[in-house]
Amino acid sequence: MKKIINDPSKVVDEALAGMAAAHADLIRVSYDPHYIVRAEPPRSGKVGILSGGGSGHEPMHGGFVGFGMLDAACPGAVFTSPTPDQVIDATKAIDGGAGVLHIVKNYTGDVLNFETAAELALAEGISVEAVVIDDDVAVKDSLFTAGRRGVGGTVLAEKIVGAAAEAGADLAAVKALCERVNASVRSMGMALTSCTVPHAGKPTFSLGESEMEIGIGIHGEPGRERMPLEPANAIVERLLGPIVEDLPFASGDQVLLFVNGMGGTPLIELYLAYGHAEHVLAERGITVQRRLVGNYITSLEMQGMSITLLKLDDELVSLWDAPVQTAALRWGR
Amino acid sequence: MKKIINDPSKVVDEALAGMAAAHADLIRVSYDPHYIVRAEPPRSGKVGILSGGGSGHEPMHGGFVGFGMLDAACPGAVFTSPTPDQVIDATKAIDGGAGVLHIVKNYTGDVLNFETAAELALAEGISVEAVVIDDDVAVKDSLFTAGRRGVGGTVLAEKIVGAAAEAGADLAAVKALCERVNASVRSMGMALTSCTVPHAGKPTFSLGESEMEIGIGIHGEPGRERMPLEPANAIVERLLGPIVEDLPFASGDQVLLFVNGMGGTPLIELYLAYGHAEHVLAERGITVQRRLVGNYITSLEMQGMSITLLKLDDELVSLWDAPVQTAALRWGR
Repeated sequence: MKKIINDPSKVVDEALAGMAAAHADLIRVSYDPHYIVRAEPPRSGKVGILSGGGSGHEPMHGGFVGFGMLDAACPGAVFTSPTPDQVIDATKAIDGGAGVLHIVKNYTGDVLNFETAAELALAEGISVEAVVIDDDVAVKDSLFTAGRRGVGGTVLAEKIVGAAAEAGADLAAVKALCERVNASVRSMGMALTSCTVPHAGKPTFSLGESEMEIGIGIHGEPGRERMPLEPANAIVERLLGPIVEDLPFASGDQVLLFVNGMGGTPLIELYLAYGHAEHVLAERGITVQRRLVGNYITSLEMQGMSITLLKLDDELVSLWDAPVQTAALRWGR
Repeated sequence: MKKIINDPSKVVDEALAGMAAAHADLIRVSYDPHYIVRAEPPRSGKVGILSGGGSGHEPMHGGFVGFGMLDAACPGAVFTSPTPDQVIDATKAIDGGAGVLHIVKNYTGDVLNFETAAELALAEGISVEAVVIDDDVAVKDSLFTAGRRGVGGTVLAEKIVGAAAEAGADLAAVKALCERVNASVRSMGMALTSCTVPHAGKPTFSLGESEMEIGIGIHGEPGRERMPLEPANAIVERLLGPIVEDLPFASGDQVLLFVNGMGGTPLIELYLAYGHAEHVLAERGITVQRRLVGNYITSLEMQGMSITLLKLDDELVSLWDAPVQTAALRWGR
């Protein structure tokens, strides 16, 4: 295992310490239990937005804590759900009296632990609502889920819902908005290589020298099929086809196109894929009105990418364009 | 070779097309010859800032074209110097009558081709000055250089000089500023893995399963030594020691600490390294006043990192903090 780490059992603690030092103007880190909150205290009357999940998907979620996006992130161990005590403590830390929305990726452990935390928070008088993101069209159920997995759509939901909360929307409104984003977003990923979880010490799976996995999960869990490597354009079409047909996205739609790197893929390849994806959508009469290209929801050093499509309307565009200032996502179209 | 590409000979063209589509609000791309300029025409009286070099180091330089940073970038083939015609055409495209500064990384081909272009531009009546960045303390000469290589310091120089040009500094002033940044910045890198140049089709070099290369160049060219993999803290100290002793940086100094990923290293490892680097500097009495953590000057999918240290003063801090809006570097501390 080749990694720039000291001790596999300390990776998350030490990375959080580095993040806290690097972004002291934006965030504060709690170590027992682990959570990241904004540097400034909660604003009275603002709905708190909280997400979390296993570490190893950086910059998600900690890199999204800041003005216009998340109020708190709860990082679990690598590829492991955060515990209820993390979520409950972070929920309390960000409650400004208007309640807290939990944005949860659909993995069995995450859903269970967030539910437990929400019940405990409610018992302490904090209004909590939760929305489960399940945008991955690759598989119906998987190793870690009942139903579809939550992947790239989570990044977009966090940005859009964060903007609405910043603008003063109440808990019912941000919950409804998050549900609407989830209903309008679809994703699928693929991998050229595996990744290695630090405490496992060996690759999660293996792929032959000329194989790829279509429909991969963000923990390296199996996708739809393992097949011979193809040119980029064919890969883009393999991902976009099922995404477009699932919602379905139709001619005349305005969309946000998000080409996401799995962590180990050069930006030059992501831009190349983006170019073809926009072209394929144009041929179907679908207009890319906003876009995001880069490594935002990753699987450690995995080489691969995912594509996410969100159907836009004027309200979503306006919330996407609203100012944001976090370690990973800053203002810009 | 596992890459998300179509044809190795078309990687740069197709990636540029994707970039142009993704960032139409910021940039325009010329394909014959290749260069990237800001979407808006040159501002009369503003010094143009131009850089360039081989592709494969994304987001550098094209990702740095925009308000407050570069006016143009000239991408060569992967790991290959841009040609003089690229540089001359881009120079003409951005000249607003106040001249153009070329920021050149110290590689023999780059220096030669930028010199040729500068002579041709001068012959056509455009004032051109050039500053060669050579901040890599790893080796004195290398496969591709006489003298030290230009690496991470280039990113910082482009941000700071770009801010000064935006604020109205004249050509002599931006040149002097760029020379001052180069005189105050030092870097060193390391690799855990090689990278594969698309048209080569096989890894540039090979490293054993438990080996690393200290002092690696951004094209995979040899560094100081190949040695057994060590814990992250030891790696950080191996890079920081020679950097600090070279300038030298001394107790009482205020610095910008830049921990850069080589492309294939997870952000979690970069933050972990950043945390220890800040700690080591604090022990030497050196204060980190500004910082940058992420993948900004890469070597395709190489796993590894580099550390760059820039000695700050009030003027440099103010220029670092000035607004910037590019595909890769946006406002934020």
